[in-house]
Amino acid sequence: MDNTESKILDTEAYVITLGRQAREAAGGIAKATTGQKNKALLAIVDAIEANRESIRQANQLDLEAGAAKKLEPALMDRLELTDSRVNDMIEGLQQVAALPDPIGEVTDLKYRPSGIQVGRMRVPLGVIGIIYESRPNVTCEAASLCLKSGNAAILRGGSEALHSNQAIAKCVEAGIEAAGLNKNTIQVVDRTDREVVGRLITLPEYVDVIVPRGGKGLIARISSDAKVPVIKHLDGNCHLYVDDQADIEKSVSVAVNAKTSRYGTCCTLESLLVADSVAKEFLVGLAPHYAEHGVEIRGCVKTCEILSQAVPATAQDWDTEYLAPIISIKVVDGIDEAIDHINRHSSGHTESIMTNNYKHTQRFLREVDSSSVMVNTSTRFADGFEYGLGAEIGISTDKLHARGPVGLEGLTSQKYVVLGDGHIRQ
Amino acid sequence: MDNTESKILDTEAYVITLGRQAREAAGGIAKATTGQKNKALLAIVDAIEANRESIRQANQLDLEAGAAKKLEPALMDRLELTDSRVNDMIEGLQQVAALPDPIGEVTDLKYRPSGIQVGRMRVPLGVIGIIYESRPNVTCEAASLCLKSGNAAILRGGSEALHSNQAIAKCVEAGIEAAGLNKNTIQVVDRTDREVVGRLITLPEYVDVIVPRGGKGLIARISSDAKVPVIKHLDGNCHLYVDDQADIEKSVSVAVNAKTSRYGTCCTLESLLVADSVAKEFLVGLAPHYAEHGVEIRGCVKTCEILSQAVPATAQDWDTEYLAPIISIKVVDGIDEAIDHINRHSSGHTESIMTNNYKHTQRFLREVDSSSVMVNTSTRFADGFEYGLGAEIGISTDKLHARGPVGLEGLTSQKYVVLGDGHIRQ
Repeated sequence: MDNTESKILDTEAYVITLGRQAREAAGGIAKATTGQKNKALLAIVDAIEANRESIRQANQLDLEAGAAKKLEPALMDRLELTDSRVNDMIEGLQQVAALPDPIGEVTDLKYRPSGIQVGRMRVPLGVIGIIYESRPNVTCEAASLCLKSGNAAILRGGSEALHSNQAIAKCVEAGIEAAGLNKNTIQVVDRTDREVVGRLITLPEYVDVIVPRGGKGLIARISSDAKVPVIKHLDGNCHLYVDDQADIEKSVSVAVNAKTSRYGTCCTLESLLVADSVAKEFLVGLAPHYAEHGVEIRGCVKTCEILSQAVPATAQDWDTEYLAPIISIKVVDGIDEAIDHINRHSSGHTESIMTNNYKHTQRFLREVDSSSVMVNTSTRFADGFEYGLGAEIGISTDKLHARGPVGLEGLTSQKYVVLGDGHIRQ
Repeated sequence: MDNTESKILDTEAYVITLGRQAREAAGGIAKATTGQKNKALLAIVDAIEANRESIRQANQLDLEAGAAKKLEPALMDRLELTDSRVNDMIEGLQQVAALPDPIGEVTDLKYRPSGIQVGRMRVPLGVIGIIYESRPNVTCEAASLCLKSGNAAILRGGSEALHSNQAIAKCVEAGIEAAGLNKNTIQVVDRTDREVVGRLITLPEYVDVIVPRGGKGLIARISSDAKVPVIKHLDGNCHLYVDDQADIEKSVSVAVNAKTSRYGTCCTLESLLVADSVAKEFLVGLAPHYAEHGVEIRGCVKTCEILSQAVPATAQDWDTEYLAPIISIKVVDGIDEAIDHINRHSSGHTESIMTNNYKHTQRFLREVDSSSVMVNTSTRFADGFEYGLGAEIGISTDKLHARGPVGLEGLTSQKYVVLGDGHIRQ
């Protein structure tokens, strides 16, 4: 047996042990009371408070290793657990503890003509595998959401955050045990070899769903190799369409907010469409604001005629999520061309229309095939907290199971409950 | 290029054409009005009425070919389109036309502290691929459910039903065109080579979900090879647990109904558990009824002590879906052992408890991890019509997206709708 083979066997045994332990813990956390789950969440808070210094030291190790490896500044920033980020982790845990427990909720219990009552009960999915990159605070967020939704979880963070993740994992484990729950309810992978991920996503007998959080490359690779269902979060090529009956002043304000309030989020505006009849007035009003923020404009021919500072867009621009101070702008005939362009080029994340025309709002809401469709609003609102979900594990651009921001409910399923009194089927 | 290669290229082009046409049609059917969709459904009824004779002739060709190939009697039975089955198809279409349209329904539209309104709108999934075996009436059922739920569909029936399926497909196409909709909304595959299925389930760009309907082998093969999400319907190893506080008379009646009313359905009872303290009274009361129906009993040691006609069960019996007049029976200590046995051996389809103990009902409903959990009721009620869904495309034993009987709602998704008045995110 050569080294590679021995390592593969070793990975196999390691991942299967994780899976068995998770499956066993899932039975317990599924029937845990709301009180027990909240107690665990608040005990994790206590453990983090008590271990701030050791978390800081572990993070320091990761930061030094990252600096030695010359990680990009953006990665180094995400890796750092500042005091304020630790405070955010604590606040997040307290918020999740305060959310209503989704598990066990029975809805739509109704009598049927046969005399039986039929309804649906919300239940956990079982075991959730979460694969993420550099931000160690995700360990805490993911653990809290899985715990509250009655699921066991296997968390696999980025190798560059290993020490930080293990320090947080110890606090999570301490909190779970303080509430009398199985410590394997949340397992944080302590190995960094890629084979672990490769195996984890092919074990439907132990893992019910995989949630990848990270760059396009990671998500595409996992989606293509997985034998377990994946809740995907792909890119956000988000559009704003300024209709011929839009309020121009509000449209400018929304276009500025949607593009410039943050460049790196998936609900940031990437492409603007504007109806021909209002294009000049709108674009001339908008351009100084974008200039002030240093936003580069890549425009269609008409846009370039109106705005001398615009550079010509290429075909590729219409499909690009810049995540940067760049925007593509296209002048369209009207709502038909706008909807058609969006359904052709959008990534199905979030699109918004600015208009006071009732029929146009109705058509836009119905015909645009994206996870969030908006009227007279900034695309930046597409977020679990803004939508009232209380927390968010990601934004799904899939249609099956969960679409749009995924909160606790997205980590659950519903089974049918049927009540009778000795009823038999004729 | 040898013959095989040429055939593969040919299959590739064929399937991609189907996919492109379906994707294009999906945009149209998604925005079709309720009136248009119902008009199409009722025009299919007219076409079937007008073509009863050609459907009968096509079916005759399939039956003759089946007889020549010496198909099993059960397969030959499923293949036959009797007058009464054609009537059932027509009635099914009329029922689906009468169901409320799920598409466009907006729920939970609420104001958020930021001032925006957030709700959810029900939308079609897009393109649904349905792969089924011998029953040609599935062509009509599947077409009607996809049409009403605003989806385009690619239907691939069994090779032995090719002529019947094509005759029905003509009626479906005529109905869709009579309502002014794109005839490619429902495409019925007219090729019988397996490569078509193999390719269809690996095209996420054209197919949004695959629903396999058929035997375990078909479903396992599709699940393992698919690159498209699959709504699975695996086997139904359904349990009835007769608790120590059960009404014995009602328990006998339910056990008889659940096992003997039909042997071949997925919600048929396959395994009985009975609490030790009532085992003798219950089993002695039940045995004559099973004897009358010729049901073979495979029992645990205690069962065999109580019933001399029982044969000893092997370990394999606890995991077996017989689909035949055979049942496994096990005497258990009480509710703990019953729940544990079920969660270990059940296929997660449907389980029922007979009891008058409140705590036991609460525990059974919460802790048994199956798509339908029942109290004092025959497992035979696990069915879309009995649950009030109006129609059913299958019973999902998955947890993600759809669980239990899948009706129109299971063929839809929800997107977020956000309404504002120039709102920007702070």
